[in-house]
Amino acid sequence: MALIVQKYGGSSVADAASIKRVAKRVAEAKRAGHDVVVVVSAMGDTTDELIDLAQQITPMPPQREMDILLTAGERISMSLLAMAIHNLGVDAKSFTGQQAGVITDESYGKARIIDVTPSRIRQTLAQGSVAIVAGFQGVNPTTNDVTTLGRGGSDTTAVALAASLKADVCEIYTDVDGVFTADPRIVPNARKLDRVSYDEMLELAASGAKVLVLRCVEYARRYGVPIHVRSSFTTHTGTLVTDQPAAEGEIVEQPIIAGVAHDRSEAKITVVGVPDVPGKAARIFQVVAGAGVNIDMIVQNVSVAATGLTDISFTLPATDGAAATAALTEHQPDIGFASLQYDDTIGKLSLIGAGMKSHPGVSARFFAALSEAGINIEMISTSEIRISVVTRADSLDDAVRAVHTAFDLDSTEDEAVVYGGTGR
Amino acid sequence: MALIVQKYGGSSVADAASIKRVAKRVAEAKRAGHDVVVVVSAMGDTTDELIDLAQQITPMPPQREMDILLTAGERISMSLLAMAIHNLGVDAKSFTGQQAGVITDESYGKARIIDVTPSRIRQTLAQGSVAIVAGFQGVNPTTNDVTTLGRGGSDTTAVALAASLKADVCEIYTDVDGVFTADPRIVPNARKLDRVSYDEMLELAASGAKVLVLRCVEYARRYGVPIHVRSSFTTHTGTLVTDQPAAEGEIVEQPIIAGVAHDRSEAKITVVGVPDVPGKAARIFQVVAGAGVNIDMIVQNVSVAATGLTDISFTLPATDGAAATAALTEHQPDIGFASLQYDDTIGKLSLIGAGMKSHPGVSARFFAALSEAGINIEMISTSEIRISVVTRADSLDDAVRAVHTAFDLDSTEDEAVVYGGTGR
Repeated sequence: MALIVQKYGGSSVADAASIKRVAKRVAEAKRAGHDVVVVVSAMGDTTDELIDLAQQITPMPPQREMDILLTAGERISMSLLAMAIHNLGVDAKSFTGQQAGVITDESYGKARIIDVTPSRIRQTLAQGSVAIVAGFQGVNPTTNDVTTLGRGGSDTTAVALAASLKADVCEIYTDVDGVFTADPRIVPNARKLDRVSYDEMLELAASGAKVLVLRCVEYARRYGVPIHVRSSFTTHTGTLVTDQPAAEGEIVEQPIIAGVAHDRSEAKITVVGVPDVPGKAARIFQVVAGAGVNIDMIVQNVSVAATGLTDISFTLPATDGAAATAALTEHQPDIGFASLQYDDTIGKLSLIGAGMKSHPGVSARFFAALSEAGINIEMISTSEIRISVVTRADSLDDAVRAVHTAFDLDSTEDEAVVYGGTGR
Repeated sequence: MALIVQKYGGSSVADAASIKRVAKRVAEAKRAGHDVVVVVSAMGDTTDELIDLAQQITPMPPQREMDILLTAGERISMSLLAMAIHNLGVDAKSFTGQQAGVITDESYGKARIIDVTPSRIRQTLAQGSVAIVAGFQGVNPTTNDVTTLGRGGSDTTAVALAASLKADVCEIYTDVDGVFTADPRIVPNARKLDRVSYDEMLELAASGAKVLVLRCVEYARRYGVPIHVRSSFTTHTGTLVTDQPAAEGEIVEQPIIAGVAHDRSEAKITVVGVPDVPGKAARIFQVVAGAGVNIDMIVQNVSVAATGLTDISFTLPATDGAAATAALTEHQPDIGFASLQYDDTIGKLSLIGAGMKSHPGVSARFFAALSEAGINIEMISTSEIRISVVTRADSLDDAVRAVHTAFDLDSTEDEAVVYGGTGR
């Protein structure tokens, strides 16, 4: 008997029929003798509909009220799921984030979990019931107001609850079969990974793989929570995200490379004609950070000796492009650069694998593959277990396929693959 | 400067445009210098849609989960209204029933308010903000679970908050202009009452007038909360429900009769051939009460001496008809009656007025009017300030009009009247 936390996203509970299907799955786990806690997102498009309603009222809703509004979505899905499970003869009770003890800071709209005190959940499990918990929400204890956790909030709720309850596994149910060596929409013969380490999963998530958000993986790594990413539409085993050694007798493939991730959401800013004196680069990044913008990759060109000027390029989320250029333009006089170039037609490709630490030749093979495919590389950055390059957006798909093939990641079987975005 | 509690029903906040209109009204009251607390129902059909969703999941949803589900509706409307008021430059904060301190018993689906501890509401008013409160909901303090208050729950929330905050008035906004001498759909020249006493309003509500529910008026009378029933579509003065004497110089009509109410929701059960021995009637009403059914009017026929048998008729809500007949049939052997007759084609008409206590001749005029209109009377019951009769359902409208005219209640002006059902 295990303690299992299951998380179902919005597409898994989109309507009454889907909720009944999920209920059946939950009831099966319970009947198999496990203690089951279920974290659930809002039904299908509910959250978007609520955001749309708010936009009809005002373009700038107060964030406290926005959070109260949005948490209505999970309140609906969690109570319906509890009813559906109850209807199968299995006792179930639903709890809001507050009732489940999800304590956050007061950053409405993107609150961070600071503590989890799930005494009511423990009590419910002890009574032999299934506990359903609203994902994506918590409570700010100083004012007793509800908060929402932002993107990937329900996954984070599930992992945080699993950590606090010392669950054996946190199952993240989604509309894909697991974590793949590449996005199957681009690489149709991408392979599902059986296992991936926290570090690799962190790099994959940070590099554009959308199946899990970064903060959820960070949380899981910090508390050693094994995550099982799997499909809610099949009973296939998915991908286990863990650092635990495989059980004795279990044959686990230990590939050099975990996968190829890509990201089309970034833009590049080039600051042209920066005086090549100490402190100028630091000043630029201070200004950008001051605008609340996170920088990803940075390249400083070699200074042209005759002019004493250099160019500095960096990438950032395209959604922060306007804020960053406005801040830099405001500080143009004191930084003293000549001009700004903004480019949002770039793509980023990342090769990730814990094995590359100990396997020389990975970069050589990587750059050879890109070169043979005729891909022009604009920026490069590396970590111990990752190589990333920036290319033109329209050559990104070709680049992903070339690298995927070069590292023998292509599947030899015909795997039936369903792939889509994940809920929040 | 006054402290005003305003309550808006579902039809007043049915969509974004309606919410903005209500926001304007709230902002005007605030700008006029008043402290304003707003109680709001769920938007338009939200509650019915949520009930429908639950029905798609299971025919018998656990009531705790049903209450969690339904309270999502007010969570949406209250946060949207706070946003809309905020957008007009007036600070507003929304609160769930729990946050507003609405403490109830644990009767999910029809909880009773046992205490109101509105410290956060007082604090919000002291900060100069408008407080928005979700109607229809509270919290069961022993488990910290949300409860719903049942029919008319938002009106009751508003009156309970007004009592606890010692508000100067509780304004119930609805889609009619106030309390009328009769339902204007039946009597087009019914008059709006300027004032009505708690006792009269209680009798009106109990006799089928739908503008306010009984428990809300009971609460208001107990705590002396003046209720102002008015339209959210006009700025007309509505009807003041109060026992306070009129202000000096204020000319208040003190009519003998407050109005004529009607009710089509009852049914009549006749227990035929009951042995006319002591204790049989008590046994019948014990059995019916044991099935959770409230009886309204009772008539026992004169016993036929030869047989020693009598008939007992009573009225009850038609929705309880099945439960009552089942319970009686089960106990037929020990009660010893011959048969049951069930009739749901009856109507009830009630004439209500505090003045009838001191004005002889009211009943004579009442029965004369019905007789002249050719209305057959099946049952009669009276209180100090009310006479009720049961008629055939299809002669009820004629009966209402005849009595309304006989007591000179018909309006001489052409009043523009909008009349419809009220929200919960």
